[in-house]
Amino acid sequence: MTAERPIFVLNGPNLNLLGLREPHLYGSATLDDVEQLCRSTAGQAGCEIDARQSNHEGVLIDWVHEARQSASGVVINPGGFTHTSVALRDALVTLEVPLVEVHISNIHAREEFRHHSYVSGIATGVIAGLGIAGYRAAIDYICRLQ
Amino acid sequence: MTAERPIFVLNGPNLNLLGLREPHLYGSATLDDVEQLCRSTAGQAGCEIDARQSNHEGVLIDWVHEARQSASGVVINPGGFTHTSVALRDALVTLEVPLVEVHISNIHAREEFRHHSYVSGIATGVIAGLGIAGYRAAIDYICRLQ
Amino acid sequence: MTAERPIFVLNGPNLNLLGLREPHLYGSATLDDVEQLCRSTAGQAGCEIDARQSNHEGVLIDWVHEARQSASGVVINPGGFTHTSVALRDALVTLEVPLVEVHISNIHAREEFRHHSYVSGIATGVIAGLGIAGYRAAIDYICRLQ
Amino acid sequence: MTAERPIFVLNGPNLNLLGLREPHLYGSATLDDVEQLCRSTAGQAGCEIDARQSNHEGVLIDWVHEARQSASGVVINPGGFTHTSVALRDALVTLEVPLVEVHISNIHAREEFRHHSYVSGIATGVIAGLGIAGYRAAIDYICRLQ
Amino acid sequence: MTAERPIFVLNGPNLNLLGLREPHLYGSATLDDVEQLCRSTAGQAGCEIDARQSNHEGVLIDWVHEARQSASGVVINPGGFTHTSVALRDALVTLEVPLVEVHISNIHAREEFRHHSYVSGIATGVIAGLGIAGYRAAIDYICRLQ
Amino acid sequence: MTAERPIFVLNGPNLNLLGLREPHLYGSATLDDVEQLCRSTAGQAGCEIDARQSNHEGVLIDWVHEARQSASGVVINPGGFTHTSVALRDALVTLEVPLVEVHISNIHAREEFRHHSYVSGIATGVIAGLGIAGYRAAIDYICRLQ
Amino acid sequence: MTAERPIFVLNGPNLNLLGLREPHLYGSATLDDVEQLCRSTAGQAGCEIDARQSNHEGVLIDWVHEARQSASGVVINPGGFTHTSVALRDALVTLEVPLVEVHISNIHAREEFRHHSYVSGIATGVIAGLGIAGYRAAIDYICRLQ
Amino acid sequence: MTAERPIFVLNGPNLNLLGLREPHLYGSATLDDVEQLCRSTAGQAGCEIDARQSNHEGVLIDWVHEARQSASGVVINPGGFTHTSVALRDALVTLEVPLVEVHISNIHAREEFRHHSYVSGIATGVIAGLGIAGYRAAIDYICRLQ
Amino acid sequence: MTAERPIFVLNGPNLNLLGLREPHLYGSATLDDVEQLCRSTAGQAGCEIDARQSNHEGVLIDWVHEARQSASGVVINPGGFTHTSVALRDALVTLEVPLVEVHISNIHAREEFRHHSYVSGIATGVIAGLGIAGYRAAIDYICRLQ
Amino acid sequence: MTAERPIFVLNGPNLNLLGLREPHLYGSATLDDVEQLCRSTAGQAGCEIDARQSNHEGVLIDWVHEARQSASGVVINPGGFTHTSVALRDALVTLEVPLVEVHISNIHAREEFRHHSYVSGIATGVIAGLGIAGYRAAIDYICRLQ
Amino acid sequence: MTAERPIFVLNGPNLNLLGLREPHLYGSATLDDVEQLCRSTAGQAGCEIDARQSNHEGVLIDWVHEARQSASGVVINPGGFTHTSVALRDALVTLEVPLVEVHISNIHAREEFRHHSYVSGIATGVIAGLGIAGYRAAIDYICRLQ
Amino acid sequence: MTAERPIFVLNGPNLNLLGLREPHLYGSATLDDVEQLCRSTAGQAGCEIDARQSNHEGVLIDWVHEARQSASGVVINPGGFTHTSVALRDALVTLEVPLVEVHISNIHAREEFRHHSYVSGIATGVIAGLGIAGYRAAIDYICRLQ
Repeated sequence: MTAERPIFVLNGPNLNLLGLREPHLYGSATLDDVEQLCRSTAGQAGCEIDARQSNHEGVLIDWVHEARQSASGVVINPGGFTHTSVALRDALVTLEVPLVEVHISNIHAREEFRHHSYVSGIATGVIAGLGIAGYRAAIDYICRLQ
Repeated sequence: MTAERPIFVLNGPNLNLLGLREPHLYGSATLDDVEQLCRSTAGQAGCEIDARQSNHEGVLIDWVHEARQSASGVVINPGGFTHTSVALRDALVTLEVPLVEVHISNIHAREEFRHHSYVSGIATGVIAGLGIAGYRAAIDYICRLQ
Repeated sequence: MTAERPIFVLNGPNLNLLGLREPHLYGSATLDDVEQLCRSTAGQAGCEIDARQSNHEGVLIDWVHEARQSASGVVINPGGFTHTSVALRDALVTLEVPLVEVHISNIHAREEFRHHSYVSGIATGVIAGLGIAGYRAAIDYICRLQ
Repeated sequence: MTAERPIFVLNGPNLNLLGLREPHLYGSATLDDVEQLCRSTAGQAGCEIDARQSNHEGVLIDWVHEARQSASGVVINPGGFTHTSVALRDALVTLEVPLVEVHISNIHAREEFRHHSYVSGIATGVIAGLGIAGYRAAIDYICRLQ
Repeated sequence: MTAERPIFVLNGPNLNLLGLREPHLYGSATLDDVEQLCRSTAGQAGCEIDARQSNHEGVLIDWVHEARQSASGVVINPGGFTHTSVALRDALVTLEVPLVEVHISNIHAREEFRHHSYVSGIATGVIAGLGIAGYRAAIDYICRLQ
Repeated sequence: MTAERPIFVLNGPNLNLLGLREPHLYGSATLDDVEQLCRSTAGQAGCEIDARQSNHEGVLIDWVHEARQSASGVVINPGGFTHTSVALRDALVTLEVPLVEVHISNIHAREEFRHHSYVSGIATGVIAGLGIAGYRAAIDYICRLQ
Repeated sequence: MTAERPIFVLNGPNLNLLGLREPHLYGSATLDDVEQLCRSTAGQAGCEIDARQSNHEGVLIDWVHEARQSASGVVINPGGFTHTSVALRDALVTLEVPLVEVHISNIHAREEFRHHSYVSGIATGVIAGLGIAGYRAAIDYICRLQ
Repeated sequence: MTAERPIFVLNGPNLNLLGLREPHLYGSATLDDVEQLCRSTAGQAGCEIDARQSNHEGVLIDWVHEARQSASGVVINPGGFTHTSVALRDALVTLEVPLVEVHISNIHAREEFRHHSYVSGIATGVIAGLGIAGYRAAIDYICRLQ
Repeated sequence: MTAERPIFVLNGPNLNLLGLREPHLYGSATLDDVEQLCRSTAGQAGCEIDARQSNHEGVLIDWVHEARQSASGVVINPGGFTHTSVALRDALVTLEVPLVEVHISNIHAREEFRHHSYVSGIATGVIAGLGIAGYRAAIDYICRLQ
Repeated sequence: MTAERPIFVLNGPNLNLLGLREPHLYGSATLDDVEQLCRSTAGQAGCEIDARQSNHEGVLIDWVHEARQSASGVVINPGGFTHTSVALRDALVTLEVPLVEVHISNIHAREEFRHHSYVSGIATGVIAGLGIAGYRAAIDYICRLQ
Repeated sequence: MTAERPIFVLNGPNLNLLGLREPHLYGSATLDDVEQLCRSTAGQAGCEIDARQSNHEGVLIDWVHEARQSASGVVINPGGFTHTSVALRDALVTLEVPLVEVHISNIHAREEFRHHSYVSGIATGVIAGLGIAGYRAAIDYICRLQ
Repeated sequence: MTAERPIFVLNGPNLNLLGLREPHLYGSATLDDVEQLCRSTAGQAGCEIDARQSNHEGVLIDWVHEARQSASGVVINPGGFTHTSVALRDALVTLEVPLVEVHISNIHAREEFRHHSYVSGIATGVIAGLGIAGYRAAIDYICRLQ
């Protein structure tokens, strides 16, 4: 049943700038590239995705609530909210489907305040530093569970 | 004069899921039940309430600004914003009416990061762990002041 | 069965001075007023209370042990022991009836060392800053459970 | 080329209440006064400004993204987001034009949690405590660079 | 000479509830069982014990003062005072006979605040987590010294 | 009027052992010597003292409450309670007469946990390390105020 | 050239017990299963692996030194050394090939001391919580780079 | 009356090297340039300045004492004393005229130990990161107050 | 069945020097004395021991793995690894037989970094400061369980 | 012999402003009053004093070196250097005569950074909060030792 | 007598890579160069050395034990174990000959976790940042003592 | 060219007392001995030194500024300023010649506050605990660079 539901791919604040800013940290791929990569990875495994991006914490929370009803898994890159949003964590913890947190850059090699994530503790798993390939690994992981 | 104004009952992020998630923490009552309880409690004391919920920090701040003009008191459950939002605190501190912070669960018995509230220090009072009865106590407290 | 047992209302160190000291923090009501308020609140709900005060940590612990046998609920204002007494916490955690911690002033708006309570983590709920009305809310809460 | 672009003057949460709340901290000037002061300061230097205010973190982030394309400099008073928003910092760090952080009150003379700013570390400069004159100094600084 | 003096076995707050509360932490043996075990262990080694329990810090301090004159060794389970009482430590440090601190449960596997003991640093030795057998080991240790 | 009231000289836990324990820290004078020194110092200045010692925190609190009615000043050596008792602090802060905290040894040259005093912040003044001469200085100070 | 070199798959202390201990944390797959999974994943991508396990920090360091000469990439699960070994970090930082750190369990959801890794800061990327599928993702990532 | 008094411009340790050291941090302007900029800025506003520099903390304190009698405002760049000198703070806090702290570089973007200033908490305002233009803004601010 | 298995007595780094170094901390007994004491204590209770010592963390881990198959209990003095080895802890936590941690000296009375043990939190019990008699108490405890 | 040497009374930075600044903290007595009080107190006991004040740390250190040769005791109020000067502490620790640290205000009731003194740990004793009477007590204490 | 014993020169993990890795930190000299430098320095002073390197903590500990019997001094560069090994410290503290800790790079100018050394506190002396010349200085120092 | 410039040997506060105070920490050599040792060491290598000592931070800073023009290297023992002076660090960081920090005693084996040096992070190298031989090693190191 859940197999017919899409995997939500949620990107948080500033990820709409992907490929446009700080390429030494984030590479040159754009958000479109990320979503395309997710779509093709899922397609090969017979899954679908529903990809969205917002700079608004409240919108992301609303989408997570929607995912509770509609998604077979969630891949989230919470951007800067990773380190500051208890509200987003509280939304994500209500999910009953697999949740993978993805970071394009290696957050452990950056500023101290990026070493703690409010999401990691309640995610199924975490992938950081693999560039946009991290999304592929996350999608691949969730599809294989189904 | 202020007696004719309603008490604002503001619920923050994820409280729209009340009764639907983690019942061992939050019980089985829904947000509708909470608002109904507030309304009946206020009614018995001759007060009115204006109950709202949002997952958006900015919307809550806007409502607090509105309360500065329109409310005779504020009962707020800031959800996850409790522990992270200086902006919400800065809005609330401008209130000149009683402010009661309510938490359904006992935040002191949960994760370390829930033990600090940016709101408590500038609230009139704080109630935690009494389940949805905490709202009743908060409404009752404010009504008796009027 | 437990309905026939009284609710213990235990007040800790310095609360015998209530109304006599620092009225900007604690108001002008006396300990007698508090106990009278508890009694009338309980009475309206068909409950009884047994109200006591001591400046001695050991005496409070002894009373909590007594409450294990005799009380249908406990309302405690541990005063300064709130922040320092593991022994009192260890006594309270053995209770199998509802336990509500009450503080007259808003401890979160005072010195840093008052922001941590050894009791909160093992109480059913916590009420702070509502003045002596906090006791009324606590009694009301416990009576309604019975 | 950039000289023809306006300087963005972005005010964060609660600054719409300027002049209406806590005058001992923020003075009696209103947000209109601030924007008027910025406009006249810029005008004298042959610059233009684009002044906006929002209580929504996501809206501020969207505006910073817009500034990447359209602004010759940014003056920002992030209000409460100063101390909590990594997402706003991540947006601001992508700017390639001068960025001045302004605080009306002296945040170093206030609560401990206001002593750290996520913005300062990536701003060109910081001005605090000069009242609304801080905006004039910031605008003046940016105009002279052009 | 000191061989004719008894070993003081001092139990602190809440240990009178032993066997009655939280058996998963403390087991089902009662305080009487503990004292009986100490007595028989000592008896086999030709020693005597003087076993006492109090919930009052001041009483325990008085007894430690008495032990300075009358005891050939002290076994103490300070209960919750372990983590909070400098006054008890100051009394114990004046002893010139062996002092063994005993905890029935493994305090290192419990809450963070139980990981520090004011007594350990000035005790001869410490035993934790062996259940009431810890008392036997302590008595046995002291008797063999004599 | 207050000149006719005695100065309370309150000594806390373990000070009854003065002269009997750790003479390298506390010297060889006994508690009787201290009280005699206080009495003679006060006598020369036309004051009286009321000297008491207890190992019980609750008793000390009771005496402080009594001092509110009866004393013209308080000299207190809180012993180990210095570093741990919020309850004693809460009692002392209600005094409206001069309060001098005395420590025989230099607590700043001892263990880290003795460097913080809950009493100092609300005392009139603090004297440490002068041996029992600290009491003389404290009495002398209070007498001269009258 | 490097394509002809194997990817080193290094497993640290206690991973020889995989599948035999704590299945709620680590699942039921054995170390042989892990190595088989790595081998088949690599094979599909035309890569080879060289898989080893040791409980000895020095042996792991020696292997990392060997990898400097012989490996086209390194996948490492440092086990308990993750959180304590600067020496292993110092060896790994000398690698000039991709390095992926893998943890079977979600270390962010476990004890506090597991939240910091000496390896993450110098790895290319980190994968945690995906069970043994994390190894597949790591191998897949490295093979695609070649 | 105070308008006839000069504004003191006090530069602390190492600022005599301005323009000679670390131009990536401090630019190429010299101390003479700074003082000339201050003088011309003040002149345009009808004010005078008295500019001094010392590497000696005691000399700076002496000058601040002099400013209490003679200055209509103080602009200070305390250099390294910013982060370490309570004595300088204690001198500055006695001023009854406006005090602006200026830093040429953005101290918030440098080493951790430069993020705290003993001066900021008692200054009227703080300007950092604007290069030597920060002095102009400070002088301009003070002149306009007069 | 397990009764026929020996109790492993594992001594960590530097314990081969026992009796040869720092006798004020560790006494004059040698490692042979310790093992002989363990053997005789066990023998009296009808148990056997298997005593080993290593300065190599990896060897100790290997032995703990062996103990999973072969031992009826483990007594371990992890020496310096007590405070630093997560890997050893991870091995020990897989044991399903009683585990007692022994320290000859009172680690709580020594340097701060010796106050935390990675082993204590997952041991059955802990004994410190009783000299080599601590081993006797540990063996005795385990034998009595069988 | 030492009796013929004077007691050095050293006052640190800003104490030359005594009586002129912040009278709510320091009272209205001037430095002359302090020195006069010291002189008369010493005179009554047959001692002499040598009183000096400097805002320069180096000068104070030089004087302490001089005191090693010439003084029979030292009374020092290090002002702001109390909390920051290891160099002054290192000078003072070489004294072989009694050293009393005096603070006019109660530093424990002020900012957090004033709660630690580099001097206290190596002084004979410390007096704080008694106003200028603290100097009298210090002089009196030293004179009585001689 | 000890003059006939060699000075042990012990190099810890990864120092076998010296000259092969990170030359900006460690220079281009190899371990052979280091040992040759030590040998020639010692030779000029009539001393001998015994130089060894290992990546295994246990092997280093074994060698330190050997040094207790055979060495006239120890020069150690503990590499990464510097910051993590209590076991190595415990071995080194048993030495009765001079012990000099050497670091090729300036560890104080690197990551925070390299600023603390478990060895420094028990070494005779420490040399860091002088490149391989640090070894020469250490050998020279020890030879001159003999 | 720089070879003709002297090496500055700067000694900070209290080093004029060398040999006169605390010989267990600093030995019996005097400052003259130190300077003589430096001179002879330099002479053997064909270098010159310029040796100075001051208790005044400002004087040391002035000398460092002078060294920028005149010295071929700097050896500094900053005494107590090591741990507290950002201003001295800021002066030293402008040097473009080798800088060696020397401490006679092993600061890592002393009080906690001596474990951090503001100088080490910007020095070429650091030598501690070798007694006055540390100066010889520092001079020798710098001379060989030339």
